[in-house]
Amino acid sequence: MYLGAIEAGGTKFVCAVGDEEGNIYERVQFPNTVPEETMQRVVDFFQSYHLEAIGIGTFGPVDLNKKSPTYGYITNTPKPHWSNFNFVGTIQKYFHVPIGFDTDVNAATLGELFWGRAKGKNSCIYMTVGTGIGVGAIVEGRLVHGLLHPEMGHILVRRHPDDTFAGSCPFHGDCLEGLASGPSIEKRWGKRGADLSEQNEVWELEAFYLGQAIAQYILILSPEQVIIGGGVAKQSTLLPLIHHHVLNHLNGYVQHEVILKHIDDYITRPGLGDNAGICGALALAKQALRG
Amino acid sequence: MYLGAIEAGGTKFVCAVGDEEGNIYERVQFPNTVPEETMQRVVDFFQSYHLEAIGIGTFGPVDLNKKSPTYGYITNTPKPHWSNFNFVGTIQKYFHVPIGFDTDVNAATLGELFWGRAKGKNSCIYMTVGTGIGVGAIVEGRLVHGLLHPEMGHILVRRHPDDTFAGSCPFHGDCLEGLASGPSIEKRWGKRGADLSEQNEVWELEAFYLGQAIAQYILILSPEQVIIGGGVAKQSTLLPLIHHHVLNHLNGYVQHEVILKHIDDYITRPGLGDNAGICGALALAKQALRG
Ligand SMILES: Nc1ncnc2c1ncn2[C@@H]1O[C@H](COP(=O)(O)OP(=O)(O)O)[C@@H](O)[C@H]1O
Ligand SMILES: Nc1ncnc2c1ncn2[C@@H]1O[C@H](COP(=O)(O)OP(=O)(O)O)[C@@H](O)[C@H]1O
Ligand SMILES: [Zn+2]
Ligand SMILES: [Zn+2]
Repeated sequence: MYLGAIEAGGTKFVCAVGDEEGNIYERVQFPNTVPEETMQRVVDFFQSYHLEAIGIGTFGPVDLNKKSPTYGYITNTPKPHWSNFNFVGTIQKYFHVPIGFDTDVNAATLGELFWGRAKGKNSCIYMTVGTGIGVGAIVEGRLVHGLLHPEMGHILVRRHPDDTFAGSCPFHGDCLEGLASGPSIEKRWGKRGADLSEQNEVWELEAFYLGQAIAQYILILSPEQVIIGGGVAKQSTLLPLIHHHVLNHLNGYVQHEVILKHIDDYITRPGLGDNAGICGALALAKQALRG
Repeated sequence: MYLGAIEAGGTKFVCAVGDEEGNIYERVQFPNTVPEETMQRVVDFFQSYHLEAIGIGTFGPVDLNKKSPTYGYITNTPKPHWSNFNFVGTIQKYFHVPIGFDTDVNAATLGELFWGRAKGKNSCIYMTVGTGIGVGAIVEGRLVHGLLHPEMGHILVRRHPDDTFAGSCPFHGDCLEGLASGPSIEKRWGKRGADLSEQNEVWELEAFYLGQAIAQYILILSPEQVIIGGGVAKQSTLLPLIHHHVLNHLNGYVQHEVILKHIDDYITRPGLGDNAGICGALALAKQALRG
């Protein structure tokens, strides 16, 4: 039984053929140019397999509303030629199989639930802290969609009293993304995150904001596992500081030993590492097959 | 087809017999005394019906984890004699039917989804602002439980710059509940909410906090409907002010016409009014029957 997986990024595509256990048999990678050319390469790669389902985890914004006439489209993207592109419809023309379609972050979240750090669990959140802050959530085994899709990176956090940085979100200024994304670190401290490893106050402040946000997610979603990925989370000092701040914010209110005693297993780096994206697309294929 | 419903409150119980359409045929109400006596009255009331399922929406705290040995128990309640009471087990002894069991807020949320303001939708949140602030959430048709259960009333909100009140939450001081519950209004302004109707600044500040919290819930859960009940929400000036603050906090980011154009239909009072509790218990019975 073969499943197809597409990790569609703004600059590159990864395609893979795998199975329901998360094994990957073959993969290719190529640049994302214009839709015609890029999709042709996808189709060529898959053509020699008898696929049972295909999963697509993609850059966005996308239309995920199954009742909408533009379901499965990339909507208004700054990426040239991709606005209003019917992604699902194009794939469906060549492959008459169930197709799973979701954002890249949601795909990674599902991949972690099926085969990564949240394996065996019923709920989790996956947070990526990089150029932006994106969060995917799974509740009772299902990705949270709702009215649109969650925009958890844009919640408000309380400012640290010593932080005078105005924030970099074009919509909200000093929302979480505006205060704690990679570019906001760079703007506040005048250097890129990767070059600030030695400066403790950078990661102390970063953990103050991320820990506060994660505490809010825990109070609202009560996930069984919290996973943090993305470039900024590569700073090895960050995770223990986040653990401290989450406990501090919850202040003993969420009385569960997973939080009180095992926070270092509860809030972790991803289990799938650099395969999170493509495994996530495979997970979407598996889910599409089961309906 | 008859379904049984139990709305178990700290001071009183309401029991009803109804059906899958949310019709109620008979109901009784009696004080909550000690478990033996109170449960005997429940059993006596239901005995003459051939029930297909029973739903229980109850005061708490409760154990909702189906894998736990104390699932279906009231846990450490201040209410005398009710701590560690096996609620589901006791009912199950008399009635060998599926039993739905959840918190009172979650029950009301499900009731609103089945037969109230969120009818026909797949997701919603129900917020009650009274002695405490409780919120139930439904995602993809299912109540959010997770690790424990959400404690959305205790999220952090940014303080209004003019508000010097310390907050009344014993755990967090100035979390949402500490700043915006009925008792915190009373402590801040020196009068009960019901006697402050004329004072605009009270409701302006209240809407500032509730609107901010609801904006966070929308960003995190993306519900298709938001419902606000409880004593404090009876202030008729409050809802339009909340609409204003929610739009203000989201600042055009969640681009959906339900929010941008129809916020007064999107954030509303409950549809079931004073029947929310008992209808919610009936909804739990219906859900238990379907599995
Ligand atoms: N080791 C690191 N430490 C701190 N910040 C980093 C590190 N690596 C990348 N970043 C920051 O993360 C952001 C890029 O995020 P990344 O997750 O790698 O890609 P993207 O979010 O664009 O997919 C940049 O702002 C970069 O400065
Ligand atoms: N009309 C009203 N306006 C403002 N506050 C009110 C009103 N009615 C009740 N309250 C406040 O709401 C709280 C009680 O909430 P309620 O929802 O009635 O009960 P509970 O939360 O205890 O079940 C009290 O703090 C009370 O002061
Ligand atoms: Zn923002
Ligand atoms: Zn609190």
